[in-house]
Amino acid sequence: MAGEEVSRRSFLKHAGIVGGAAALSGCAPQQGPAAGGGASGKHYEWQMVTAWPANFPVLQESAEEIAAWIAAMSSGRLTIQVHGAGELVPALGVFDAVAQGSAQMGHSAAYYWKGKSAAAQFFTTVPFGFNAQQMNAWLLAGGGMELWRELYAGFGLVPFAIGNTGVQMGGWFRNEIGSLSDLKGLKMRIPGLGGEVLSAAGGKAELTPGGEIYTSLERGRIDATEFIGPFHDTKLGLHKVADYYYYPGWHEPGSTLEMMVNKAAYDELPADLQAIVTAAAARSNMLLLSRMDAANSTALVELRAAGKTKILPFPEDVLSGLRKHATEVLDGMAGDPFTKRVYESYRAFRENISVWSKVSEQAYYDL
Amino acid sequence: MAGEEVSRRSFLKHAGIVGGAAALSGCAPQQGPAAGGGASGKHYEWQMVTAWPANFPVLQESAEEIAAWIAAMSSGRLTIQVHGAGELVPALGVFDAVAQGSAQMGHSAAYYWKGKSAAAQFFTTVPFGFNAQQMNAWLLAGGGMELWRELYAGFGLVPFAIGNTGVQMGGWFRNEIGSLSDLKGLKMRIPGLGGEVLSAAGGKAELTPGGEIYTSLERGRIDATEFIGPFHDTKLGLHKVADYYYYPGWHEPGSTLEMMVNKAAYDELPADLQAIVTAAAARSNMLLLSRMDAANSTALVELRAAGKTKILPFPEDVLSGLRKHATEVLDGMAGDPFTKRVYESYRAFRENISVWSKVSEQAYYDL
Repeated sequence: MAGEEVSRRSFLKHAGIVGGAAALSGCAPQQGPAAGGGASGKHYEWQMVTAWPANFPVLQESAEEIAAWIAAMSSGRLTIQVHGAGELVPALGVFDAVAQGSAQMGHSAAYYWKGKSAAAQFFTTVPFGFNAQQMNAWLLAGGGMELWRELYAGFGLVPFAIGNTGVQMGGWFRNEIGSLSDLKGLKMRIPGLGGEVLSAAGGKAELTPGGEIYTSLERGRIDATEFIGPFHDTKLGLHKVADYYYYPGWHEPGSTLEMMVNKAAYDELPADLQAIVTAAAARSNMLLLSRMDAANSTALVELRAAGKTKILPFPEDVLSGLRKHATEVLDGMAGDPFTKRVYESYRAFRENISVWSKVSEQAYYDL
Repeated sequence: MAGEEVSRRSFLKHAGIVGGAAALSGCAPQQGPAAGGGASGKHYEWQMVTAWPANFPVLQESAEEIAAWIAAMSSGRLTIQVHGAGELVPALGVFDAVAQGSAQMGHSAAYYWKGKSAAAQFFTTVPFGFNAQQMNAWLLAGGGMELWRELYAGFGLVPFAIGNTGVQMGGWFRNEIGSLSDLKGLKMRIPGLGGEVLSAAGGKAELTPGGEIYTSLERGRIDATEFIGPFHDTKLGLHKVADYYYYPGWHEPGSTLEMMVNKAAYDELPADLQAIVTAAAARSNMLLLSRMDAANSTALVELRAAGKTKILPFPEDVLSGLRKHATEVLDGMAGDPFTKRVYESYRAFRENISVWSKVSEQAYYDL
């Protein structure tokens, strides 16, 4: 999913999505800077900037809902106006806007901020890393969240986990992938660590913007692309321009979505509003994953019924080859001391939870 | 996990657990009936009764935390005093106490209330049913929650999903299970639908109270028992009295925990407090699952390292035999029209999500 800078216009063009998400917001469109102070009767009017186009399903809905929940819980004492990507700042401007306080909240994904710290990527997803359930266990009960807070505190931000995509799909390919050697020279839109892993395997990782994926794939400027899962992928029309749909999404096995709050603005809130913001974020967490699962289920069943798409697992040697390269890429990343600490926490937790997952979730799926 | 009526004393005796959970509550111990009215400055003092002993790890902590979050978010306008099983009402008295309004809230599991409606069991777990992620998708994005609300509204209650155990373990056995025929005559503590399935396979389902499990297994009054997962099971000391620990927990593949609110009391709350109660419940949902996973991971690794316990998968013919009986039991359950509706919703959702799980979570686990 990395790099969801799909423009609203382009998404609508290929997907036929119309408004609706915006209607979820219960907030009046008020302007103005955040109010300071901590008196409990005081009104706060905040701006939230997101990394998603204003009508982007599920993800932008989460931003709008969080704002609506906070308004309801606070009886309007904290109202938040939500701005899609490009309205106040571009998608990749979210972090700086919230860090600098020009918006009080952001809704995005931490791996977009790898330029600030390589460690940020661990708080979204890494190739062959945790799935959604394992990731939440690490974040909420394994020390992950504390590390994330420590990292973001250095930028004047407070992070929250507000959802997960679940295991994504491996992507759309114009031609069949028979073995690892078929990745050599393959031009695939796959940003971030996934792209680095593909490059290590001899592929050519492209940074095609979201709004150009459809046309690039249609015209053969790229041979393949990853996006998210059946629901968003078919909304974007990718099944019309490529026939091979591979699984699983080794490059994004469970991407955590984030909400961030400007730390000074958060600290100014009275304790009740801080607790309300925290609960609203947490309320979105499981709900977003559930919505992704439900929507992907329906879309996949429809895709299968249409009969055109070949839905295939990656060949074993492709996955074992990519996994080897992924380990090299992650090992090479842990250069600075903080990233090393995060990677060590991640690895230690994985060692334990993989033992448990094997006899619980995995054993049950495999019945 | 069915029938967690473990007494506090017995749990402490075998597990060495000491207080701490209670300290999570930020609520002052106030007594008194619920206050009526809806003015937003009004104070409400509620009682919450739970189906867990006062020091029961993870589950009772969730109850205490929900109360603390609500107190914090409402600046003390809604305070909730939490009572463990047996303090105001016994574990299995929670539903009636909240329905009748002698307590305003309950924290339990819906399958305890199968005497009210067979359908209630679908809102916790059924043998060979959904795991945690699938269950949440059905509840939160597949119509399950709406059915649950409809059922409970008939009893004057509002239900909330506030956590999931994840796939449980299959249980502790004094002797090895080589094939389906080894279940014939086997005396196993396994309440509810799991027990009915075992009985259909020729076993003898026992309703040993939680507080007597350890002694019954130690003395051979039962041959086997299910409980929850490695964390709670070893706290109860079960690894000391049986050597065979089977997986996966086909009988409880992902048990949802519930919070219930007396509907009249809920309706009296102003809208902000209703939103606060809803968010607190949702905040617990993923957190409880994450805590179970983290605790079970550590406990399983320790159990394996100790070297005494044989941790084994059920033989294939045992699982396929039990699955056949489970289908018979569930089909036989859907007698009344409402239970039939719930079962049909469950089955339709399962048909779609199993297609998706296969190429996402399962394919990823199986790499």
